[in-house]
Amino acid sequence: MWCQQTVTLNAKPRGFHLVTEEILRQIEGLSRINVGLLHLLLQHTSASLTLNENCDSSVRRDMERYFLQAVPDNAPYEHDYEGPDDMPSHIKSSTLGVSLLLPVHRGRVQLGTWQGIWLGEHRIDGGSRRIVATLQGE
Amino acid sequence: MWCQQTVTLNAKPRGFHLVTEEILRQIEGLSRINVGLLHLLLQHTSASLTLNENCDSSVRRDMERYFLQAVPDNAPYEHDYEGPDDMPSHIKSSTLGVSLLLPVHRGRVQLGTWQGIWLGEHRIDGGSRRIVATLQGE
Amino acid sequence: MWCQQTVTLNAKPRGFHLVTEEILRQIEGLSRINVGLLHLLLQHTSASLTLNENCDSSVRRDMERYFLQAVPDNAPYEHDYEGPDDMPSHIKSSTLGVSLLLPVHRGRVQLGTWQGIWLGEHRIDGGSRRIVATLQGE
Repeated sequence: MWCQQTVTLNAKPRGFHLVTEEILRQIEGLSRINVGLLHLLLQHTSASLTLNENCDSSVRRDMERYFLQAVPDNAPYEHDYEGPDDMPSHIKSSTLGVSLLLPVHRGRVQLGTWQGIWLGEHRIDGGSRRIVATLQGE
Repeated sequence: MWCQQTVTLNAKPRGFHLVTEEILRQIEGLSRINVGLLHLLLQHTSASLTLNENCDSSVRRDMERYFLQAVPDNAPYEHDYEGPDDMPSHIKSSTLGVSLLLPVHRGRVQLGTWQGIWLGEHRIDGGSRRIVATLQGE
Repeated sequence: MWCQQTVTLNAKPRGFHLVTEEILRQIEGLSRINVGLLHLLLQHTSASLTLNENCDSSVRRDMERYFLQAVPDNAPYEHDYEGPDDMPSHIKSSTLGVSLLLPVHRGRVQLGTWQGIWLGEHRIDGGSRRIVATLQGE
């Protein structure tokens, strides 16, 4: 069984956001998969998808502070016409990645106890974000 | 054909470890796949899976030194109650990733000549680690 | 339907290169897939595959400058016998990744409007590069 659909994430402020529920509640057909895989592709180059801690929001704040310092806004980028947060967003997007592949078992995504799906919103005003979700299995 | 199973990695010290054989010898059904894919998801947020050099252990030591310096333990993290190696482990886990997808051909994983699977153990005392392995193909 | 093949990329200078067309024109069977996934595995440990901006080459130049500074050639690496660009290439390869999984719909890869496939060539003289492409779908 194959099922492909588009999932939309509401606009969020710059930073890391736990979006496991916002994504999974939009996935049709998940409950019909006994064994399979769910693929998510964020169709943007200035945001990211990653798996990390699903409980304590201080982890997401520390992650944001780390990346603001590791990939600074105020470096002399050549590509700067969309503002100082533009080029750093492209760098963070490739460093963290825009794609996840998750095992499915008995209709549920098999994340670890402490794992959740994070959106890294790297633009100050990124707007809503689009994901292509491809579900396959039997 | 779909086959999903849990693979366990023995506890390892902090650093990068070549785990190709420790993982693959636990994968049942691999020899029955002519063309397919093997997906590995490490179900943790303070370790990582990555592909890198399979021969010279100095590459793994240099990688560890690089990440100890790039993501320092002694930064002023807000999330610090599990010790100074806790938050850096979350950052390294998202930077390196926790998931691999590997092509399978005639019962064998198709890695490059110099590629092996590395576990990045980012905690000082991480304990054993769990991977969900999903194998599919024909 | 499963289809597995090897794709070769011509030798390129150090830096980031847009290779969407060079890869996709070599993929046989793509037009016969209604819904599916295309997996690409770069079989090397000193280069990378990532998705990023497909239009303005200044983004690729800024990315290269960022990684040359973030992972310097002139650090005291233990693994240095292939030259000062050797160990930094391994670090960049694991940071950016060597594998992509792309949704396919009606015979076409479903990238976002601004997304393209980049090769990160991290060696000064990396030579041609090999990718195992695994296509599946219905």
